[in-house]
Amino acid sequence: MSQTIKSQQQPPLELQAGRECPAVNSNDGHKSRVAVIGSGNWGTVAAKLIASNTLKLPSFHDEVRMWVFEETLPTGEKLTDVINKTNENVKYLPGIKLGKNIVADPDLENAVKDANMLVFVTPHQFMEGICKRLVGKIKEGAEAISLIKGMEVKTEGPCMISSLISNQLMINCCVLMGANIANDIAVEKLSEATIGYREKGEIAEKWAQLFSTPYFMVSAVEDVEGVELCGTLKNVVAIAAGLVDGLEMGNNTKAAIMRIGLREMKTFSKLLFPSVKDSTFFESCGVGDLITTCLGGRNRKVSEAFARNGGRRSFDDLEAEMLQGQKLQGVSTARDIYGVLRHRGWLELFPLFSTVHEISTCRLPPSAIVKYNLQKPVLT
Amino acid sequence: MSQTIKSQQQPPLELQAGRECPAVNSNDGHKSRVAVIGSGNWGTVAAKLIASNTLKLPSFHDEVRMWVFEETLPTGEKLTDVINKTNENVKYLPGIKLGKNIVADPDLENAVKDANMLVFVTPHQFMEGICKRLVGKIKEGAEAISLIKGMEVKTEGPCMISSLISNQLMINCCVLMGANIANDIAVEKLSEATIGYREKGEIAEKWAQLFSTPYFMVSAVEDVEGVELCGTLKNVVAIAAGLVDGLEMGNNTKAAIMRIGLREMKTFSKLLFPSVKDSTFFESCGVGDLITTCLGGRNRKVSEAFARNGGRRSFDDLEAEMLQGQKLQGVSTARDIYGVLRHRGWLELFPLFSTVHEISTCRLPPSAIVKYNLQKPVLT
Repeated sequence: MSQTIKSQQQPPLELQAGRECPAVNSNDGHKSRVAVIGSGNWGTVAAKLIASNTLKLPSFHDEVRMWVFEETLPTGEKLTDVINKTNENVKYLPGIKLGKNIVADPDLENAVKDANMLVFVTPHQFMEGICKRLVGKIKEGAEAISLIKGMEVKTEGPCMISSLISNQLMINCCVLMGANIANDIAVEKLSEATIGYREKGEIAEKWAQLFSTPYFMVSAVEDVEGVELCGTLKNVVAIAAGLVDGLEMGNNTKAAIMRIGLREMKTFSKLLFPSVKDSTFFESCGVGDLITTCLGGRNRKVSEAFARNGGRRSFDDLEAEMLQGQKLQGVSTARDIYGVLRHRGWLELFPLFSTVHEISTCRLPPSAIVKYNLQKPVLT
Repeated sequence: MSQTIKSQQQPPLELQAGRECPAVNSNDGHKSRVAVIGSGNWGTVAAKLIASNTLKLPSFHDEVRMWVFEETLPTGEKLTDVINKTNENVKYLPGIKLGKNIVADPDLENAVKDANMLVFVTPHQFMEGICKRLVGKIKEGAEAISLIKGMEVKTEGPCMISSLISNQLMINCCVLMGANIANDIAVEKLSEATIGYREKGEIAEKWAQLFSTPYFMVSAVEDVEGVELCGTLKNVVAIAAGLVDGLEMGNNTKAAIMRIGLREMKTFSKLLFPSVKDSTFFESCGVGDLITTCLGGRNRKVSEAFARNGGRRSFDDLEAEMLQGQKLQGVSTARDIYGVLRHRGWLELFPLFSTVHEISTCRLPPSAIVKYNLQKPVLT
């Protein structure tokens, strides 16, 4: 069951009632300080959301410190200098004004040292290195949240980014996932997200306050693993949906494939983590993100091209041509999941997941996506 | 939890093993006879599916009798004569060959008199009249299934078609719903459906055998009301999705609206019928049909046009222009649901359902679909 947390956009009661404003700065020592670790497209939008809220919420310091992997722009300027001067991430979110209370910081340790709320939003492959650098450097009692999608899934099971953060830094770590295309949120189009938390509901509520706006609706569920797995597994279903598009099978078949994919996401997550809840898959992180990813998204797009070419051009080849250096996570996740399924003897329970891998490695033709035996009973 | 019923496309074991074929006709008295009441687009496809299976399944008579509302074609021929001569429903499913074992019958009473399995698939507004004509005319112990979507929802609650059939004819009635576009299934594109049954699982299994093919996958859940309500409520969500398309808000917002719509479908169904199961909404009748309807479908299409016109042309007007006489169910269902919500004091629990009605009656502009307070807590 989800806990919908109301937006805190209203001024506090004292202000509403026309009473004198209390000295909001008198209690600065107890205010939470936020650091955002990462400044790509999604990281910058997350910082923008957060910075709009820290200005309004009396329990937070206004300033949001954003760690930026320093780059020198073609103009010769440093990216952090430009962000701090123009309040715009000209490289990863051009054209969008960020709050003036966002401070870009090229020094990772400095960015986090005073923060008691840490938002991780970097490419997943950098997290191991970042965690190592942060050991012993973060504030006691700090809380973390991971916005990072696309964990690796090894034969022995998935390497949850939230666990990596928790274990390396010895802190509690929530996750935030959902149907959220950064550029759409940047221009304040209606969107949703799901927070997954472990036990500490009051922390989830605090994170929800920090992210919620009238156009970005955040719910929280007590299911870190379920929420986090959705963010990775959906990419495999997007490959399947793209194949259906490329085969021009129509919306009816595409809906069937998406639904079966959602079922396999749920079954796989529950087999790996018995604590995972069915209801999580009704949240934005589940069905919402799946729909977004299967309608748009790069996994779907490249997979459609793969099917249109009858599987004669490889995914690697198409990825290089179509994605300008971005990586296709669905194919590698399908491969990793296939390893888990084979290792555990579960291949027959996951016809869609395994067929996606067999198609992407050219062991089956693209048309196999609508021909395998989906009738097989699946534990639900 | 769904019960996936295996397709019965394989020959029976005796045949597989190369043994002599048993005298399959020796037991004709115990074989089930199927009648399909209705011969529109979906009815004809359903008859085709069934007729392909009765030939293969020894427990069914080959012949499938299909009641056809008789029409005289422009050529002067009777529709039933043409269907029986050409094995094609030239009016409602042109270009598709039906099984030779389908017999079109213009006489309703004659079509059903020997049948012990009755498949109802007419427009919903005709069912009351048809049931009245059938009282006392059907075989004792007959079983029914309704494929009819779009029940009416009156202030005191929905008028379930399955209940109408059950109560009028004093027979058990299952339902079959799902993401199924008749023309796609006619050309054997992969598709799914969900059977909702009450108590008698063995009957659900028999219906599933009768409908399942390798390209039409049928599951069964013990939840008649949940399955049947999905088939009607999804049309309201499709109106909302069409508005998002017309407003050009993108996939992210559309996914959010579809997800919130699915949540309201679930909540509404459970408030009306506490027996309704969450898991039903993961089935083809739930999330599957919702996706199909919100990607294609006439409700979505007309609603998109409504938003593009800024609400200046009414739904009635656009319907008349765009649908060539077909009716838009989403708008009238939204109106009916609004009546229930107001009557029961539930308006605040269903911001999406109520906003769709307020937009379609021009009390709110189309853009309200992404502006109302979706944060309101919803019982789940």
